[in-house]
Amino acid sequence: MIDLYTFTTPNGRKASVMLEEVELPYNVHKIDITKNEQFTPEYIAINPNSKIPAIIDQDTEMKVFESGAILIYLAEKTGKFLPVDQKGRFQVLEWLMWQMGGVGPMSGQLNHFKRYAPEKIPYAIARYEKETLRLYSVLDKQLVDKEFICGDYSIADIATYPWISIYESQGLTLDNHPNLKRWVETVQQRPAVQQGMKVP
Amino acid sequence: MIDLYTFTTPNGRKASVMLEEVELPYNVHKIDITKNEQFTPEYIAINPNSKIPAIIDQDTEMKVFESGAILIYLAEKTGKFLPVDQKGRFQVLEWLMWQMGGVGPMSGQLNHFKRYAPEKIPYAIARYEKETLRLYSVLDKQLVDKEFICGDYSIADIATYPWISIYESQGLTLDNHPNLKRWVETVQQRPAVQQGMKVP
Ligand SMILES: N[C@@H](CCC(=O)N[C@@H](CS)C(=O)NCC(=O)O)C(=O)O
Ligand SMILES: N[C@@H](CCC(=O)N[C@@H](CS)C(=O)NCC(=O)O)C(=O)O
Repeated sequence: MIDLYTFTTPNGRKASVMLEEVELPYNVHKIDITKNEQFTPEYIAINPNSKIPAIIDQDTEMKVFESGAILIYLAEKTGKFLPVDQKGRFQVLEWLMWQMGGVGPMSGQLNHFKRYAPEKIPYAIARYEKETLRLYSVLDKQLVDKEFICGDYSIADIATYPWISIYESQGLTLDNHPNLKRWVETVQQRPAVQQGMKVP
Repeated sequence: MIDLYTFTTPNGRKASVMLEEVELPYNVHKIDITKNEQFTPEYIAINPNSKIPAIIDQDTEMKVFESGAILIYLAEKTGKFLPVDQKGRFQVLEWLMWQMGGVGPMSGQLNHFKRYAPEKIPYAIARYEKETLRLYSVLDKQLVDKEFICGDYSIADIATYPWISIYESQGLTLDNHPNLKRWVETVQQRPAVQQGMKVP
């Protein structure tokens, strides 16, 4: 049994989608970050960085924080969504890192400045909109001849989908990125994705 | 022989420090991002995301982009700086992801708004200063009873050092973070780090 500590945000959904995909049983513990529940001593003992998501695997007593590490952990535990051959494996790790260091933080800053910041700062909004759209273009090109980011469905797709699927709420469109649009539609049809995106 | 494509920035230095640490021979190819050399078709064939660093391993013909993936690749190739036992390995992967998704992007935004942006925007500077200092506190606490981030020196240290070591140029101090300060001093005494930080 896996304990999942999460909230209703893209980084949390990476973990719940993965758990649905690999069909491992899990308990959901909602950490309401709007109520600062990520800062309690109990949660800091699980994730010293005070962010969701985190997991505890009761089978192995492993605690894992950072969504990228959780995805690798669950992929290795189940033998799913991370190729074992070196070339395939590193392609997935590259694109997972690309999501972790690029799409996540940049799209996250766009969310902040466009939707949550108390003042609307045109320079900051333009900066993160431009970088998010650049990342969309990079991914659109990668998908031109592939169904999924690295060919077969992998943790690179699972990490990236929750961040791209919020494009409308960010005031963006995928109309100029047909391969990306097709990919979003394909991924969102997966029952595990639909289930995982509702957690918690 | 490894071909390293890099520039004089923290993400580039992660790769050159690692290559120095594992003592693999490498050729340096300078990609001057101030001259947009990351956008040439030749470089896009190596890194579709148009960022440094990237490597090509002539022994295996593997091309790897994203600094986090490069560090894992070189650690696995040499058997160094990434434990093989599951618990030790995932601690390092967690902190590597923490660097990739946290310290790197947030400290990078602070650089941008404090040093490079044409207008000084107090809200944005304060936002990224606050988050960078929060990350410093998290790391300071992690280092309270450890010489290095995960006990032994690892790719988590190699990924994080080039970003923390620029603290002065960001107008920050480590005086309130004594464990972090001691760690910076310890890491910077390593000959491989001194060498790698001069590349290219
Ligand atoms: N790099 C981390 C980022 C996690 C993250 O930023 N989580 C957000 C929600 S999407 C959070 O917990 N925010 C609460 C806070 O910043 O206090 C990961 O991928 O796990
Ligand atoms: N997540 C990437 C980030 C790489 C990155 O941002 N590199 C910067 C230099 S530190 C770059 O190439 N910038 C050029 C540009 O943005 O056009 C990694 O860790 O490799």
